[in-house]
Amino acid sequence: MLELNFANMMEEVIGVRGINVKVLESLKVQVQEEHRLISERKLPELEFLELPNRDISEIKKFAQEIRKDSDHFLILGIGGSALGPRAILEALSPLHNLRKTPKVFIYDNVDPRTLDGIFSVIDLKRTTVNVISKSGSTAETAAGFMLLWEKMKDIHGKEAGKRFIATTDPASGTLRKIAAENGMRTLPIEKGIGGRFSVLSPVGLLLAEVIGTDSSHLLKGAGDIHEKCSTYELWQNPAYMFGTLLYIMNGEEKRNINAMIPYADSLKFLSEWFCQLWAESLGKNGMGMTPYPSVGTTDQHSQLQLWMEGPEDKVVIFLRIGDYGVDFTIPAVFEGVDGMSYLSGHSISELIKAEEESTELALAKRGKPNMTIHLPSIDAYHLGQLLQFFEIATAFTGLLMKINPFNQPGVEEGKNFTYGMMGKKGFETKKSEVEEAREKKACWKI
Amino acid sequence: MLELNFANMMEEVIGVRGINVKVLESLKVQVQEEHRLISERKLPELEFLELPNRDISEIKKFAQEIRKDSDHFLILGIGGSALGPRAILEALSPLHNLRKTPKVFIYDNVDPRTLDGIFSVIDLKRTTVNVISKSGSTAETAAGFMLLWEKMKDIHGKEAGKRFIATTDPASGTLRKIAAENGMRTLPIEKGIGGRFSVLSPVGLLLAEVIGTDSSHLLKGAGDIHEKCSTYELWQNPAYMFGTLLYIMNGEEKRNINAMIPYADSLKFLSEWFCQLWAESLGKNGMGMTPYPSVGTTDQHSQLQLWMEGPEDKVVIFLRIGDYGVDFTIPAVFEGVDGMSYLSGHSISELIKAEEESTELALAKRGKPNMTIHLPSIDAYHLGQLLQFFEIATAFTGLLMKINPFNQPGVEEGKNFTYGMMGKKGFETKKSEVEEAREKKACWKI
Repeated sequence: MLELNFANMMEEVIGVRGINVKVLESLKVQVQEEHRLISERKLPELEFLELPNRDISEIKKFAQEIRKDSDHFLILGIGGSALGPRAILEALSPLHNLRKTPKVFIYDNVDPRTLDGIFSVIDLKRTTVNVISKSGSTAETAAGFMLLWEKMKDIHGKEAGKRFIATTDPASGTLRKIAAENGMRTLPIEKGIGGRFSVLSPVGLLLAEVIGTDSSHLLKGAGDIHEKCSTYELWQNPAYMFGTLLYIMNGEEKRNINAMIPYADSLKFLSEWFCQLWAESLGKNGMGMTPYPSVGTTDQHSQLQLWMEGPEDKVVIFLRIGDYGVDFTIPAVFEGVDGMSYLSGHSISELIKAEEESTELALAKRGKPNMTIHLPSIDAYHLGQLLQFFEIATAFTGLLMKINPFNQPGVEEGKNFTYGMMGKKGFETKKSEVEEAREKKACWKI
Repeated sequence: MLELNFANMMEEVIGVRGINVKVLESLKVQVQEEHRLISERKLPELEFLELPNRDISEIKKFAQEIRKDSDHFLILGIGGSALGPRAILEALSPLHNLRKTPKVFIYDNVDPRTLDGIFSVIDLKRTTVNVISKSGSTAETAAGFMLLWEKMKDIHGKEAGKRFIATTDPASGTLRKIAAENGMRTLPIEKGIGGRFSVLSPVGLLLAEVIGTDSSHLLKGAGDIHEKCSTYELWQNPAYMFGTLLYIMNGEEKRNINAMIPYADSLKFLSEWFCQLWAESLGKNGMGMTPYPSVGTTDQHSQLQLWMEGPEDKVVIFLRIGDYGVDFTIPAVFEGVDGMSYLSGHSISELIKAEEESTELALAKRGKPNMTIHLPSIDAYHLGQLLQFFEIATAFTGLLMKINPFNQPGVEEGKNFTYGMMGKKGFETKKSEVEEAREKKACWKI
């Protein structure tokens, strides 16, 4: 089971920059209040907590079909619709496209170079496209969908619809309508499931099954950690403790950055998924810590200098792996060469774990707060725990901050300018605003 | 030529949170002083500025050999030794391993799962290994090197040395010695070239040539932007202006995060390369902005909410592409469907550019400072400009901050703990410190 060690967040361990136990205690009542909101499902978007209990037989059926008739699986989606599937893909099947079929591509942008690259390597005759969008009107996803639809119609004619799966609102929306009219299979994103809380819905699970993962393990892990995080007792609930500690570090200690550093290449995208979840949920009303995506040991040679000797503005979250599932012993070569022979006989998992622990300690010795999540191994069961853990922790932290963690009003303004420039009706004045700004800016150029 | 537009950093354009022209003017003399240090090469590590003039014939020769006799090219290196090559690879040859040979792998960690993955897909009989380390004693690189050396000796016997190229100090160090003793080809990292300023040395150029790029274009671009950034006149020097603006935003405005958002998937790793350069160079003496790696439009659905409505702690740096080199027109399908048809007839490069400009403006309208680097296209020439531009800007900013941008003293402590745990002689007390800390931490676990 996933565990949280928060020693290096505490005054008793790292000194004055740590948190005093009394401060934690003083928040106990507030924690219990927020817990009540969660346990009684007072917000409809808490539905993500129910996902581990959903029936997944249809997802499994579609995945079987894809594994039979497709060499390529192309996801069109952006934000949570892409980051969740990618986190699962990279964690559970590293170097997937060099080793397995169906090869997976996730097009989560409107970059023409990327699309050109994808078209040059996939065979659309043997491709299934999974369009993921709750409404269907997300501009980036819609653009990709329109392009793919035309291409697939050219190749498959009237059968084109059969090469698509629309993961979308179960009842309404653009994508639902198009899917029905064109004979596409569909999977539901239920009303209460927001994009960034959707990884354990069909959004992430179809991909999981397509790459050969039994997604029931993901759900079992999620359910188990949910149970562990269902107590109102702060001192027994790792998700609440995680959120409360960061809440204090942000509020009282004015630290505005929380860096996430898993010690596994394959969890780099888990880190990016977390960054979206945390940033978009909690960045509002002038508040919000900035989550920083990184990976160990690699970023010890990139970000660690700044963490060690930079300003007092960060909390570092380590993700330590218990068992990598495979290992290599460093052989006794180059004997007698100074600065290498001490490594001989050790395994590389020993080395990566030693580096992780050393970095924790180096930070702690300088009074830099950090905490560690222990993940026993990188498999579907524990990945499910990790995903659900962060979702609970993020929702809880939002409630503690007295904000709504489930909306994202701040992104509308930019969308409206884009609508204006793309000629969408009703946004004509937005276009003029962009053109005006462009003129005003022209002289500030070197 | 690369251009910087800094309108949205200025009070005249975005209002009170912008920079007053007088503040910029007041720094002119200081800028000229730092310029003198640079133009007179007062620090030996400014040697990176000379790299565009180096002879690259040997690099080209080795690359030709590799392209002939290798299907796989494996880089062992970490930090600048990996991030620079990866930035070039992803920018200039997206989806490389699915489209081209030699396939390229960059092992910049000691993650056993990654190594297992690499071994499962490469043919060591047809592999060249490029070990990159100035000293050779970097633990991660050394561990990988020792493992690969034994494997390659098993396969190639006495010829194993010929399958390695050591990119290292031209005269001294562990790796230099091993290379000489085992008949490996070598390429120099000159004394004055630090890891994070090494991308335009053999560190990055060999990879560039291996993937079929004429690296002289990279160097030509670097030389040209260097010339443009060689004036002491702040108002004509985009690198100095970039650094000065961030210096003011960090100092006077207390903004401690600078997010970098290129609007191209293939520049995501450029963004990560920049983050190492900036963080490790400037994060010291309790100072340093945290550089944030992101990519557009993708991160509009991840980080933008926080940038728009979160705390006043960020500056956003846009990287706008002029010509993507390829394009697709969004077809007129799903006619009459609300919320999609406005896209028909536009190209996707129009859409991505509209989104970039819209996001700039949305931030500016809220008084959030941002600036934009215009890159005419993504090719070797302009990538060379970009790399050199950021190196000059970073070195300059360090001088402005009155720190040494070329060292990284903060990473030693963690290394020493690792040495202790791995049994390196002389570090026995460090091991005890780790064990003591481990015991102390044990009770803070949920």
